[in-house]
Amino acid sequence: MSALRSYVGGEWQRPADDGTPVLDAVTGAEVARVSSAGIDMAAALEHGRRRGGPALGELTFHQRAALLKSLASYLREHREELYALSASTGATRADAKFDVDGGIGALFAYSSKGRRELPAGSVQLDGPVEPLGKGGTFVAQHVLTPLRGVAVQINAFNFPVWGPLEKFAPAFLAGVPSLIKPATPTAYLTHRLVELMVDSELLPEAAVQLVCGGAGDLLDHVTDQDLVSFTGSAATGQRLRAHATIAANSVRFNAEADSLNCSILGPDATPGTAEFDLFVDQLVTEMTVKAGQKCTAIRRALVPAERMDEVVDAARERLREVVVGNPAAEGVRMGALAGTEQREEVRRSLKALLEAGTLVHGDPDRFEVADADAERGAFLPPLLLRCDDPDLPQPHEVEAFGPVSTLLGYEGTAHAVELARRGRGSLVGSVVSADTDFTRDVVLGAASRHGRMLVLNDDNAGENTGHGSPLPALVHGGPGRAGGGEELGGVRGVQHHMQRTAVQADPATLTAITGQWVPGAPRTETEQHPFRKHLEDLRVGDTVVAGPRTITDEDVAHFADFTGDTFYAHTDEQAARENPFFDGRVAHGYLVVSFAAGLFVHPDPGPVLANYGLENLRFLTPTYPGDSITVTMTAKQITPRVNADHGEVRWDVDVTNGDGDSVAKYDVLTLVAKRTGDRA
Amino acid sequence: MSALRSYVGGEWQRPADDGTPVLDAVTGAEVARVSSAGIDMAAALEHGRRRGGPALGELTFHQRAALLKSLASYLREHREELYALSASTGATRADAKFDVDGGIGALFAYSSKGRRELPAGSVQLDGPVEPLGKGGTFVAQHVLTPLRGVAVQINAFNFPVWGPLEKFAPAFLAGVPSLIKPATPTAYLTHRLVELMVDSELLPEAAVQLVCGGAGDLLDHVTDQDLVSFTGSAATGQRLRAHATIAANSVRFNAEADSLNCSILGPDATPGTAEFDLFVDQLVTEMTVKAGQKCTAIRRALVPAERMDEVVDAARERLREVVVGNPAAEGVRMGALAGTEQREEVRRSLKALLEAGTLVHGDPDRFEVADADAERGAFLPPLLLRCDDPDLPQPHEVEAFGPVSTLLGYEGTAHAVELARRGRGSLVGSVVSADTDFTRDVVLGAASRHGRMLVLNDDNAGENTGHGSPLPALVHGGPGRAGGGEELGGVRGVQHHMQRTAVQADPATLTAITGQWVPGAPRTETEQHPFRKHLEDLRVGDTVVAGPRTITDEDVAHFADFTGDTFYAHTDEQAARENPFFDGRVAHGYLVVSFAAGLFVHPDPGPVLANYGLENLRFLTPTYPGDSITVTMTAKQITPRVNADHGEVRWDVDVTNGDGDSVAKYDVLTLVAKRTGDRA
Repeated sequence: MSALRSYVGGEWQRPADDGTPVLDAVTGAEVARVSSAGIDMAAALEHGRRRGGPALGELTFHQRAALLKSLASYLREHREELYALSASTGATRADAKFDVDGGIGALFAYSSKGRRELPAGSVQLDGPVEPLGKGGTFVAQHVLTPLRGVAVQINAFNFPVWGPLEKFAPAFLAGVPSLIKPATPTAYLTHRLVELMVDSELLPEAAVQLVCGGAGDLLDHVTDQDLVSFTGSAATGQRLRAHATIAANSVRFNAEADSLNCSILGPDATPGTAEFDLFVDQLVTEMTVKAGQKCTAIRRALVPAERMDEVVDAARERLREVVVGNPAAEGVRMGALAGTEQREEVRRSLKALLEAGTLVHGDPDRFEVADADAERGAFLPPLLLRCDDPDLPQPHEVEAFGPVSTLLGYEGTAHAVELARRGRGSLVGSVVSADTDFTRDVVLGAASRHGRMLVLNDDNAGENTGHGSPLPALVHGGPGRAGGGEELGGVRGVQHHMQRTAVQADPATLTAITGQWVPGAPRTETEQHPFRKHLEDLRVGDTVVAGPRTITDEDVAHFADFTGDTFYAHTDEQAARENPFFDGRVAHGYLVVSFAAGLFVHPDPGPVLANYGLENLRFLTPTYPGDSITVTMTAKQITPRVNADHGEVRWDVDVTNGDGDSVAKYDVLTLVAKRTGDRA
Repeated sequence: MSALRSYVGGEWQRPADDGTPVLDAVTGAEVARVSSAGIDMAAALEHGRRRGGPALGELTFHQRAALLKSLASYLREHREELYALSASTGATRADAKFDVDGGIGALFAYSSKGRRELPAGSVQLDGPVEPLGKGGTFVAQHVLTPLRGVAVQINAFNFPVWGPLEKFAPAFLAGVPSLIKPATPTAYLTHRLVELMVDSELLPEAAVQLVCGGAGDLLDHVTDQDLVSFTGSAATGQRLRAHATIAANSVRFNAEADSLNCSILGPDATPGTAEFDLFVDQLVTEMTVKAGQKCTAIRRALVPAERMDEVVDAARERLREVVVGNPAAEGVRMGALAGTEQREEVRRSLKALLEAGTLVHGDPDRFEVADADAERGAFLPPLLLRCDDPDLPQPHEVEAFGPVSTLLGYEGTAHAVELARRGRGSLVGSVVSADTDFTRDVVLGAASRHGRMLVLNDDNAGENTGHGSPLPALVHGGPGRAGGGEELGGVRGVQHHMQRTAVQADPATLTAITGQWVPGAPRTETEQHPFRKHLEDLRVGDTVVAGPRTITDEDVAHFADFTGDTFYAHTDEQAARENPFFDGRVAHGYLVVSFAAGLFVHPDPGPVLANYGLENLRFLTPTYPGDSITVTMTAKQITPRVNADHGEVRWDVDVTNGDGDSVAKYDVLTLVAKRTGDRA
């Protein structure tokens, strides 16, 4: 068997030696050989920087989002192949789906977020325009631009498909090429994934590279424009974080490490309640999915001390049903660990945990294995411990990265919070309770040591995605032991790959830089009403000024009568005067914006198809009967839609009175047609 | 002279030895002795965690913001004393104001941001509610809670007042206690600042501590809940970043290091233009303010190659006017460096720079000093170099932290961008140009290696705050050589001190946790109309349901006529049918929201004082004549104002049609009175 090739510098390269054998987790047979000998890491990085970044830079966020969707569809068509390879990693079919479908789902989710939440073009604006002077000639806007380097992604062995894809998707969307380094025990599966990605021919040049085998001197060559995302053990994470080149170049380093996650049973959840059963079910699920090899798995199960015996009984009953063995065999619920090395590591950790607790289910040395050789395959049974002194250190410090959890008793809410925090930084914690006071106190009390906290109860159980499932829309990562990093989180994950820069300028220059009209920048009053312009013809800054129109006493009285909005400030002069903000009867805000629309609208059929919304409306000065209003409406942001015959236009609206004071400011959101036939 | 005391564990502690003498930068006389010998660093950290965090946690964001304002006012009253001490650091009065007033200004700015941009309470919500299931029973919200540790702030010598205060303000607002460690050469000034802060008696227990002298074993005791903010040299930053405890505990480490900032003269800015003069003026200012000891100072001045001689001439002319000497003396424009060690360091760096360029102004060994002893004081003249091969490495790698800049010629826009990027990460870059195309290309081309980019031209010169001035509202920091960190940036700087946690739950539980009503959570239809309730009586979830009201053909026709909004979709059945989004004539969106207001409003004078705005309005389903609308309005967020007799209430509004479909959703913003007499 020859070693897996790496995909670097635009071609599949075979390593310079025969590599290390990787064994099937179930049968112990050799499934692949892995090596990175002879792979030029510096050249791979440089290839990503010189080719990948510029190629991605040619595309807009929306174009990249569309490609992610196509890639996700392509991989979905080939997923059976990935499921099949997964079996050699010890995964059951359900485990394989969790990994493969989860990864494809992350691509779909980022495609959708990219289209809906990122702007046209390839520069993202962050926060509002900041005024820097009273005269309005000097303002600032934070912008995000992609780092001009490579996202080096060092993955863990336990999610050979989801892991690389959840890192790749936000990097790709940001415009940063990826260099994927899988963990050796499951590298053959990631290798096949990247082969599919390359074969799809959907991705721009150098948007993805793959290095199978050791990282070699890869990290010696990273610069301030590269970033390193690591998933794996806390110990390796610490070592990489302090790497000389990473420290010297202030390289962005994001770590996501296994942590001692807890799940907490609420005091309300007595046996017989839905929550009691949900807690036990979730615990058993987290122990057995992927044979417990999940950095989000529950390691510490906190229960009211007085409830310990009942929880032990219920959990044992459920665990007895778990059949361990060959994932391909009928009825098998839990497969093998990724390899025998992993199994020995778990046995060592278990020994440390047994200094503080006792096994209430499972024996690491004696257990049944269905349809497989228990010696050659990397099997273990689910192992549940109970620890009657929850303040002992081991359960809070020793992680057995396998089907292992420890039950700990707590005495009261404050103690539960304290124990949850003793993990010193976790990816996730869950509370299983219908008691909102308890839940609130625990969540807010433990939050600063958690990246994610999940509440499970009968109200949400039907849709609850579970303790152990990171979601693309939510941040994944945690402080301290969990690595101190943050991945995913929707657009946040894209922004991790970009540099935030505060740009200070006059409004006209800032508009030219960001492509979004900034108040104070010139307005272009064109001969043609801007509502008559198709999307391609409209320019940021195009303006219509209309009015004045006087708002009469009768208008206000009539509007009150017509709409039913007879709020005293519009109808009762005396009462209105007593209001601290008004000098007498005022026009309705809704009347002002309705009249403003009457002024700025162009009535005939044309490119503007609909007003679909309005944002940031502020009434700044009261409008009194007799005041005249003028409206100034300016195209602020133009967002063409890929594969649609229209786009979105955001208009800045400023309604002023006879004194020139703004009475209302807001953004109007419209859909505007492209020219007939154009769908680009 | 006995050594400066440290303020730790709630008391002023004298060090265990006599300390190291610190000399006056102008006279060379001893001004202070500094030592941290015998200070128990672990105890100081633990004091901050056990006392400071909880004391700050008792306060809301708004209460902390109010305290920052009081503290700023207190320090402003005592600023003359700080100016006076500044003279010993070599600072002119203008330099002292830059430092002292800048620091006080940061407190005021954070106070204002805290009151306006942070919510009531002490938990911040981040981003929108994320739906996690189609049924709406499982949703998520990211929340930010303060780290339960200490913000360890290691400051640089050059801004002994601004430096500590710009770090303290966002930490305090977040609810995290500060431990300030000043740089030894100017520790006596920071020491006096902290004395004033403590004497003000405005701050909660342990909200601020001070360690004068070396950091000792301080960093050996930081945990995942502490954070370390460092300002200083890149070399020290690298060393601290790789510190074993910081790496082991994934401690948040934020570095802000001196960088090789550039300023770029645009090709349009020929001699005689305003921009040419602005460029030269700014360059001279940045070289001489604080004797060039600013991490944001211009080290590389990029000019069109063909303009080099003219820029040299103009700069020399302006530099000849700069009088160097005793800051107390009349006419002195530039004072001393912080000490003779700093001066020697600059001389060494200058020697390296002279391998690539030649001095066109200033001689480090021969220059005039007004009213001071040139030997004992740490003086240098402004030193301007020109380098005719801009691709040589030294100007892009060697930083002389003093009144030193190098002029470099560039050939075309792409070359200017390339040279700007050769700093490998800068705090700030500026472009002096009125050419928006050039400016846009340079800013977007160089942004990913800059934390801030400033455009200076005749349009904004009157209000421009200048290349070298970080502002509280804008991020301060930069990638790579600049340390890879980020400070300030308004609320972003507060969030650096908080942990982001994704909270997943059902809407009711999420509402209980965040205090903000989440769609899907129970609504309480109270007997009393919610507009009749004072702020203290109103509860999140209080709801009024009103309607139905049928929108007739006549209503639509009348509204078009009355407002003038005769857009064809409301008036022309045939044309409306041809619109891709409508099946025929539709009611105006403004009519729908006006009628909705007519339904939900309570007409009588009462606690609701005004509708001051509206947000996130989306029209979701067209409303056709004959449709009936019902409005459901629910109190979503209640924000009492400290020291005011009212607060803000945000209402969730959902307008539905006869089929139960939402036709419009939005937030209405109102001001609601507190009960008479209550101003708490």
